[in-house]
Amino acid sequence: MEKTPSRKGETFGRWFDWVLSEAEIYDYGRYPVKGVGVWMPYGFKIREKALNLLRSLLNSSGHEEILFPLLITEDMIRKEGEHIKGFEDEVFWVTHGGLDPLDVKLALRPTSEVAITYMETLWYKSYRQLPKKLYQVVSIFRHETKATRPMIRLREVTTFKEAHTLHESFEDADRQVKEAIEIYSRFFDELGIPYIVSKRPEWDRFPGALYTIAFDTVLPDGRALQIGTVHHLGQTFTRVFETIIHRRDGSQDYGWQTSYGVSDRVIASIISIHGDDRGAILLPNVAPIQVAVIPIPGQSEAETDLVWRYASEIDSELKRSGFASIADLDREKKPVEKYYYYEIKGVPLRIEVGPKELRENSITIFRRDTFTRTKATRGELTRVVKETLEDVEKSMRKKAWEEFRTYIRQARTIDEAADIISSRSGIVEIPWCGREKCAAEIIEKTGASKMLGTPLEIKDLGDLRCPVCGEKARTIARIAKTY
Amino acid sequence: MEKTPSRKGETFGRWFDWVLSEAEIYDYGRYPVKGVGVWMPYGFKIREKALNLLRSLLNSSGHEEILFPLLITEDMIRKEGEHIKGFEDEVFWVTHGGLDPLDVKLALRPTSEVAITYMETLWYKSYRQLPKKLYQVVSIFRHETKATRPMIRLREVTTFKEAHTLHESFEDADRQVKEAIEIYSRFFDELGIPYIVSKRPEWDRFPGALYTIAFDTVLPDGRALQIGTVHHLGQTFTRVFETIIHRRDGSQDYGWQTSYGVSDRVIASIISIHGDDRGAILLPNVAPIQVAVIPIPGQSEAETDLVWRYASEIDSELKRSGFASIADLDREKKPVEKYYYYEIKGVPLRIEVGPKELRENSITIFRRDTFTRTKATRGELTRVVKETLEDVEKSMRKKAWEEFRTYIRQARTIDEAADIISSRSGIVEIPWCGREKCAAEIIEKTGASKMLGTPLEIKDLGDLRCPVCGEKARTIARIAKTY
Repeated sequence: MEKTPSRKGETFGRWFDWVLSEAEIYDYGRYPVKGVGVWMPYGFKIREKALNLLRSLLNSSGHEEILFPLLITEDMIRKEGEHIKGFEDEVFWVTHGGLDPLDVKLALRPTSEVAITYMETLWYKSYRQLPKKLYQVVSIFRHETKATRPMIRLREVTTFKEAHTLHESFEDADRQVKEAIEIYSRFFDELGIPYIVSKRPEWDRFPGALYTIAFDTVLPDGRALQIGTVHHLGQTFTRVFETIIHRRDGSQDYGWQTSYGVSDRVIASIISIHGDDRGAILLPNVAPIQVAVIPIPGQSEAETDLVWRYASEIDSELKRSGFASIADLDREKKPVEKYYYYEIKGVPLRIEVGPKELRENSITIFRRDTFTRTKATRGELTRVVKETLEDVEKSMRKKAWEEFRTYIRQARTIDEAADIISSRSGIVEIPWCGREKCAAEIIEKTGASKMLGTPLEIKDLGDLRCPVCGEKARTIARIAKTY
Repeated sequence: MEKTPSRKGETFGRWFDWVLSEAEIYDYGRYPVKGVGVWMPYGFKIREKALNLLRSLLNSSGHEEILFPLLITEDMIRKEGEHIKGFEDEVFWVTHGGLDPLDVKLALRPTSEVAITYMETLWYKSYRQLPKKLYQVVSIFRHETKATRPMIRLREVTTFKEAHTLHESFEDADRQVKEAIEIYSRFFDELGIPYIVSKRPEWDRFPGALYTIAFDTVLPDGRALQIGTVHHLGQTFTRVFETIIHRRDGSQDYGWQTSYGVSDRVIASIISIHGDDRGAILLPNVAPIQVAVIPIPGQSEAETDLVWRYASEIDSELKRSGFASIADLDREKKPVEKYYYYEIKGVPLRIEVGPKELRENSITIFRRDTFTRTKATRGELTRVVKETLEDVEKSMRKKAWEEFRTYIRQARTIDEAADIISSRSGIVEIPWCGREKCAAEIIEKTGASKMLGTPLEIKDLGDLRCPVCGEKARTIARIAKTY
């Protein structure tokens, strides 16, 4: 058997492919269309649990879920010049219906600003209807020419949660950007995905946006991954589609918009950031199975029967108490095979019960994240499971953040930055004068692939200087090798 | 103001468009692509509630949710001859990625048998893994050339719930067809959508299926609407994709499949079948708002304040008890405007509270389905709301079935059948010898548009004869004007 690839460092990509396949999360690379994947039942449940956490955050802050058509006419999408330029090379075009060519070419949505603004013009006319916060969870399509990767760079992104908001003023939209940052922060916090929030540089704005704020995390190979973006769209789309709003002062003006999105990359992060060389480790709040109860056969069939019944009772009690529990009562498989199976799948807790536990009226609890066993009495079952799951969540989050912090490093010179990038990568913060030219040189000479952007708030920079031009630094640039 | 179209009879189509728009359920006909619609927040919630009822029925019978790619290569889809012939004229083709033509043409899925069977071949090899019951809720695309209609005949069907199952034997698949019929029956029962179950005639099978069972209902214009289908696929797709299963007797054979689906038409039925000339009437189990609490102003501002607080307390108590309640505390709108608003939206109960109710410590409950008012004491609130909602569900279901039964009529001759079809349409049952030729003549001469098929179980037909050839009837044919 081939050795399991290690999660950390250069083998991460292979580990990720291995875990998606072995844990039956997502089938990638075998379906006959490039850059698309299949969500298998176990993966679909993880995805659904993560999405429901997000839906709950969005719904409780006044967002409303909707569903727009996939197809956008060529006319619509070409209407805003900067936007189409940003997507032109990546749009999939539908040109035929049946055997006949279509009158108008139809794009598979690469994102929905255009479609949604079109309808907003018909729906919203007055400040009384605003702010309006809509979102949908849909597939988007981009004909990526770069190497595709499961969940990370896809041609069909099947889990695109895009929010689109409409406001009366620039300031309202600006406040909405802050609310969106707050919502995504809470979402990633709940998932134990550490992140850094940056303002993307001018040249890396979303096509059509006034500015873009992005969330980046770092995967176990040290490369940064963009996991969420928030855009202040200004009046770019409302001008083009003439979304005119009667304001409270009696005047009329184009509406102001924001949009913000997350994608399958959130699920990729959940799996990558918390795994280990034995497979996935799922945070209890997204785990389709939180507890696997595994019975261990006895010396006699009668004893085994009793253990099996004991396991089944434990499972029933856990289910009644609201835990996602399963008892694996297969008699043909050895306990160790079952251990292996649920370990790869990242089930956070395992309860082992054998003749010993039966005699003692006890349970043995195994934690997937720490690989430690503890004992408890049968009567403590639900309390101990609840407390252990809570502790698992807390310590998994803490561990992820601790590891993430080791990836954020400061450098003063190009050489220092290049050293870090070439050794274990991560995100390097380096003083910067603010000029694109100097940024380009920093990127090139350090071996980074991209400037993630600048912090939202700049602390006192003291005497820091741009390592390229030597002028006083106006901000800090974050650079990284990225996906 | 234009008069509201009547729900019954020939104006039904206009009524349906009107209610979708006025109740802010679904925006249709304004988005710049033909045959697609936009789910607005209120409609999206109805859709979600209906889907969740179905998910719960499917999950509890061992179905697992998955998500497959939208795109299917031309090779894949052409592999099974009968299947592609059935869809060839309707497939949307993606031919370009960015500015470049694609190497292989990609179809937007018209349905997913092909995609799913392809992967099943890789996933399932042994009877131990079977039966496997997968389902997904996705958009499908058909380039309809007939007149499109909101939710009923679309080019993008956004709510396609398709289940795909794999079995060891013909008989297992046959049993699965029965389970699917059972599940859909319970689903439509919960939604109060009456239906008749028919075996579609040979010439109207799903392309590739051994046989097709269909659920039809009747809309208020008397035309039948297909709302669900169940197919025994035999080995049609497993042969072509070589899905070979090791059977328990040691032999190998191609797997046996079924598939079954429902679509946006379910939501169309929910709205059409229960509405009235004032708008939608939603069954409480799919109503985004179950109770609207409307305060009625007093003589003085102080009194009005007290009524408003009273309304707000009632709303809070209902919410705490788990009802989807809303208090409309807008002071600028008149109560009657609010009544109108929630009536169109089909909110099943309204609680009116004014100075009188405040003094009496009472509530007035208005039922949307019967347009009746009753009084209750404040203390009875949650009990009365619960009981009333239950009664609303029961009586709405009963009423829908009663009306439906009047649409199912028996005829012995072509003339009798033609009379019924031309007067109020509905579904006509007529003796039939079983020959396609006679069926064609029955259809033509009665003015029906289609034979829905035959009953699953045939009672004693006595001396009934085919009205065309005069031979002894072998079965009953159901004919109707259809959508």
